Amino acid sequence: MKNNKGERQVDAKKKLEEFGASILNDIEKGTDPKFRTISRSRSNVHYDAKNGVLALGQKEEERNFVNVAQAKRFMQTMAVAAKCHKFLSENLHTTIRGLFYQLKYSLGEDVDENIFNEQSESNPLIEDLEVSINVKRESLNLNANRKGILAGNLRVLDNFGGERIEIDASKQGRSGWSIPSDVDNDIEFVDVKAKYVLVVEKDAVWQRLNEDGFWKKENIILISPQGQASRGARRLIRKLADLDLPVYVFNDADAWGWYIYWTIKTGSINLAYIGSDIATPEARFLGVTMKDIETYDFLKKLVMKASDVDIKRAQEMLQYPWISRHKEWVEELNKVIKTKTKLEEDTLQAPKLTFVGDYIREKVKNKDLLP
Amino acid sequence: MKNNKGERQVDAKKKLEEFGASILNDIEKGTDPKFRTISRSRSNVHYDAKNGVLALGQKEEERNFVNVAQAKRFMQTMAVAAKCHKFLSENLHTTIRGLFYQLKYSLGEDVDENIFNEQSESNPLIEDLEVSINVKRESLNLNANRKGILAGNLRVLDNFGGERIEIDASKQGRSGWSIPSDVDNDIEFVDVKAKYVLVVEKDAVWQRLNEDGFWKKENIILISPQGQASRGARRLIRKLADLDLPVYVFNDADAWGWYIYWTIKTGSINLAYIGSDIATPEARFLGVTMKDIETYDFLKKLVMKASDVDIKRAQEMLQYPWISRHKEWVEELNKVIKTKTKLEEDTLQAPKLTFVGDYIREKVKNKDLLP
Repeated sequence: MKNNKGERQVDAKKKLEEFGASILNDIEKGTDPKFRTISRSRSNVHYDAKNGVLALGQKEEERNFVNVAQAKRFMQTMAVAAKCHKFLSENLHTTIRGLFYQLKYSLGEDVDENIFNEQSESNPLIEDLEVSINVKRESLNLNANRKGILAGNLRVLDNFGGERIEIDASKQGRSGWSIPSDVDNDIEFVDVKAKYVLVVEKDAVWQRLNEDGFWKKENIILISPQGQASRGARRLIRKLADLDLPVYVFNDADAWGWYIYWTIKTGSINLAYIGSDIATPEARFLGVTMKDIETYDFLKKLVMKASDVDIKRAQEMLQYPWISRHKEWVEELNKVIKTKTKLEEDTLQAPKLTFVGDYIREKVKNKDLLP
Repeated sequence: MKNNKGERQVDAKKKLEEFGASILNDIEKGTDPKFRTISRSRSNVHYDAKNGVLALGQKEEERNFVNVAQAKRFMQTMAVAAKCHKFLSENLHTTIRGLFYQLKYSLGEDVDENIFNEQSESNPLIEDLEVSINVKRESLNLNANRKGILAGNLRVLDNFGGERIEIDASKQGRSGWSIPSDVDNDIEFVDVKAKYVLVVEKDAVWQRLNEDGFWKKENIILISPQGQASRGARRLIRKLADLDLPVYVFNDADAWGWYIYWTIKTGSINLAYIGSDIATPEARFLGVTMKDIETYDFLKKLVMKASDVDIKRAQEMLQYPWISRHKEWVEELNKVIKTKTKLEEDTLQAPKLTFVGDYIREKVKNKDLLP
């Protein structure tokens, strides 16, 4: 596994210092202070077919200080970089909200002028910096929202608060191990023993499978992103796939379930700038599918009416070439559009509570998966 | 601590059997099958000043089978009770959604008629049953949504999946222990060593304090409900208060922060039927408060514009006698209404990231708390 030493993944502090030195060099040379970043605008986001991820294109942008339209933002970016350098020096983490309040405060109580007024000003500048120095915010000690839970034969060494804490994800009982924001720095995954990774959209279904000891019996890693997957959960899935573990995703057959799957698989437009770090193109969709109704007759009674959002989303997805090139997905989405129905993963508890596990076993055995 | 044996809290199965036997007895006697429950309508919810919780009043209701308006719901309630009895016999858990799908399926694939069509039909019947036999749904093996995280000197014995798993909430690193749906049955809290319980609205601030080792230095239990508190988190806070630990709540000074506090303290209208089990009237509000601006001058620069929702909520709260009887709250809410500003707990990171902890220490030392 890449970076399994429990050390810092990149020397972000050094990169920030080089960034600062380059600006300083411009000033000393008497030239316009500037730095380069890559455009994150929609027009520069594309599907990278070779790598199977949504990624940024080649379009570079220069940020200049001697430019009326850019001077303030340039100064603000320097303030963001300086704060991140401070957080790294202190070895303390915060969030982009915490950073914003530090920036707003930073001119002191006696100065009426603020460097920042709204967080909407600082957020894009953090992304500018991430792209420019090629360091994810997690490595700048900025935690993103965390969400997601894991159980399985996986041990983690968490270098935290001056201690080296071992967490055994097979000994977390009903609770599971809560997936952190940053799964790269100061954290080490050891002794991953599993046949595959199962990602289950809903925490309720994760709890059902956890109670059945499904991950133990099948020797798998059981993850729930608990809805849309956080940056941390996506990065963790990527890292597990790097260990050559197959990744199967078990979601609802509806707009939200598909969206969660494709975000895990190809990344998302908003996070295209870190696309290959958090996308898992190897992932396969295990279910539930509308096709399952042919196999499991009882599902006929349990379909739900699709909402307008579901139908609209299915139509949109058919327009994405990286989805429509798979005939299995075209059939699946057309079934929803035509029948105006959808299916939830929870339905598989209907005949008996433990049927969810039987269903998954059958699907995996028969490799009955969507691409 | 009540129920610290790691056994089932109540014999829910026996209660369901008694419930069924009573109905059967009516049938055998040739009288109308019936059961009694307590009305959960708004008009029967009141603030119980003696116990400091929102609770149900005395108004009872009878559910009858021989009644055109009630026959279907009566039959449905029996189906709910039978399913819960089955789950308890199987020693398996599900959610109210899983229960719904089992009910919908239960007449089998060959019968066109459904006992239930929508989950909105089954949900109120579960509450009817909970109230009628005085058993919380968690004890009927129905998990509620879980949310919330904990760190501190607390060890838990989790009887789960045939194993007796010890979880040490002081050894969970950056992640913390994820608070389960059910903190009563088959779970035992042992070795709780703490001076007080600190409940922090935002997970981001919880992570900040966790990184500082705040709970270790101060010897406290550090909880974040991660927004509105789940049933499980509220029940856990109640159980910790039963150990005579003071409970301090640290939230935003805005509509949402106040709501989360008062829900923890007095319970909520929707859950008034289990009010005293999940409310902690002993809880105190540590901050942030608008009054803090007088103490900490830097906050002046960092207040936010209050939204219409914040103002409206402050006005509504002034109408609740259990809030308006506290002059400290009247002053606090009037400050928001008058200045049209509010304050976030994240602001306390502005002067330095570790200032959040300094602030809490100061507040606790001076007992500078709202009732």
